[in-house]
Amino acid sequence: MPLYPPATIGMTLAEVDTPALILELDAFERNLKRLPESLGDRKIMMRPHAKSHKCPQIAMRQMALGAVGVCCQKVSEAEVLVEGGVTDVLITNEVVGAFKLKRLAALSKQARIAVCADDAGNIKAIDEAAREAGVTLDVLVEINVGANRCGVEPGEPAVVLAKQIAGSANLRFGGLQAYQGTAQHLRKVEERQNAIAAAAAHVKRTRELLKAAGIECPKATGAGTGTYLFEVASEVYDELQTGSYIFMDGDYARNDWTESRSPRFEHSLFVWTTVMSHTGSERAIVDAGLKASSIDSGMPRIADGGPAEYIKAADEHGVIKLNGATGYAVGDKLKLIPGHCDPTVNLYDHFICIRNGRVEAIWPITARGALW
Amino acid sequence: MPLYPPATIGMTLAEVDTPALILELDAFERNLKRLPESLGDRKIMMRPHAKSHKCPQIAMRQMALGAVGVCCQKVSEAEVLVEGGVTDVLITNEVVGAFKLKRLAALSKQARIAVCADDAGNIKAIDEAAREAGVTLDVLVEINVGANRCGVEPGEPAVVLAKQIAGSANLRFGGLQAYQGTAQHLRKVEERQNAIAAAAAHVKRTRELLKAAGIECPKATGAGTGTYLFEVASEVYDELQTGSYIFMDGDYARNDWTESRSPRFEHSLFVWTTVMSHTGSERAIVDAGLKASSIDSGMPRIADGGPAEYIKAADEHGVIKLNGATGYAVGDKLKLIPGHCDPTVNLYDHFICIRNGRVEAIWPITARGALW
Repeated sequence: MPLYPPATIGMTLAEVDTPALILELDAFERNLKRLPESLGDRKIMMRPHAKSHKCPQIAMRQMALGAVGVCCQKVSEAEVLVEGGVTDVLITNEVVGAFKLKRLAALSKQARIAVCADDAGNIKAIDEAAREAGVTLDVLVEINVGANRCGVEPGEPAVVLAKQIAGSANLRFGGLQAYQGTAQHLRKVEERQNAIAAAAAHVKRTRELLKAAGIECPKATGAGTGTYLFEVASEVYDELQTGSYIFMDGDYARNDWTESRSPRFEHSLFVWTTVMSHTGSERAIVDAGLKASSIDSGMPRIADGGPAEYIKAADEHGVIKLNGATGYAVGDKLKLIPGHCDPTVNLYDHFICIRNGRVEAIWPITARGALW
Repeated sequence: MPLYPPATIGMTLAEVDTPALILELDAFERNLKRLPESLGDRKIMMRPHAKSHKCPQIAMRQMALGAVGVCCQKVSEAEVLVEGGVTDVLITNEVVGAFKLKRLAALSKQARIAVCADDAGNIKAIDEAAREAGVTLDVLVEINVGANRCGVEPGEPAVVLAKQIAGSANLRFGGLQAYQGTAQHLRKVEERQNAIAAAAAHVKRTRELLKAAGIECPKATGAGTGTYLFEVASEVYDELQTGSYIFMDGDYARNDWTESRSPRFEHSLFVWTTVMSHTGSERAIVDAGLKASSIDSGMPRIADGGPAEYIKAADEHGVIKLNGATGYAVGDKLKLIPGHCDPTVNLYDHFICIRNGRVEAIWPITARGALW
């Protein structure tokens, strides 16, 4: 970790060193509120995904606005968030291996913890870890609702695992994990709507089979920023796992939002960068490359909207094709909108929080690098 | 940062938690020695690039085998390495901005520090920072030898900047930075050889012009793992900046090395991962996604060489297409060869160092996240 953060409290944005991860607090706070506002009086729980921000300060703000808790992907993320004051964490993922399960069970003595499973042997191992720790753990069955990643098939295979969990001495059946990840970035509203209609049909059918088998299903949980109003409309989901809504990113911006009835979440997260070289008339080079902005979902976009484009990222360099844009002198600073916020946040130790052009706060990204 | 590292000293590899960054010490140490061995008695300095490892423990081992110092890309990297005991650092990059230059000048009181420049205004700012700190700084002129990134054009434009540096009260002209980055991964030996021949011709011509102008050029520095024997053969380079040779990665493995006369560097760096889900007959899911292995230069490769392929990375999931491979049961652990070592190392806090199947050491990746 660097010896000094790139900013101090009270600095102007212009003074903040680069590359730095900038959080514009006004836009961020509007995004924070727009999620609950968009739900009106519909009965659905919010459990925002902390894998996007990895920051207890943000988790606490989400809970202050009504979230019942947060989601994590990893035990080490959950550990850091619980240490930061979060009292209710759902790990929306399978947790495999004796060492991880021991930590998971231990953590459930400090906070309410639930985990997902899609494998009979793993459920047995979770039960054993809970027994050894003297705790009872909530286990949800993850079902594959179209993303073809983790999860058993909906319907009967899910009922089999739910029965196993309900019949385990140290486990409780916590419900269904039904996240349709690949639907989030389908560009057309109709495509996203159709994908979630299909997912919801799987959830509905599985809930009916569980009921017929005499197994109470406490909840179905899922949804992301790209689709959550469709999960709400389906009336078979009880809980939302939206993460990116607080930041937005280049990939979400490429979705068509017309007619989606989704609130207009704003870009609040930026990579602050400096022009470090400008020797050719066609290009300028900035100091934020792929160690400063994840390029898995496309290149970052320059926030000012001029003709210049960020076209290529090397480890520590970004190539700006000027397309006739003026400015971009050596020393000029600019904001980039990351292509994908989650892995970009994971590259930094701090959010540099800006209001009215000055550094108002520096929030540690405490679970940065929490991979296991 | 996670509360616990994924391993403890003496653990077996099988016990190490996942995802973890594994360094196989025997292979690593063979790589370390093969670079100087491959140079024989040729007079050329080694200055390995620390952007690959970001770890003082590794820098010290490189210097113990004859390296004159290391390279860095960022002032914050150099700060961490100097704090870790490194006494000679070349920043192979432009450093722009008053705050960075103040730190650079201050650091030169603790170690021998040099920096690159390609802009007259920036040279003036470096001179001013050196004056304020009461130091004399070595500044190299970066020339564009074909990568079309930073650097002035070779020849006269470089001589102009060299004159400016030599005429600045608080600067010394340190030589030419001439790294041909795009040549490193040209797949054919002949393509790499031709690219370096062109780069070397630019260096040679610029050195001749400098000589004619009465400016002594202390050195030309450059080269990477993919090409360094061609820079050596050119006899116009004095110093090598190879970084990846200690680890190798999937991208370098895709180069053709036949007839290159390069030593056979081995994969020593791996991402250790667990099968966390296996619900379909076609696929298994591992717990290392794109927050655990950078995918900018292609997907990671499974180290055992069977038919299974890592085909897709989500944030926390890797999709393995089995192609008929057996095994891959939930809980099985496997080694991945990262597509690109440098940004993968930057995702981790520790190298878990393995010898004979056990954890022999845990080296902190001290400059992880040192971006500015």
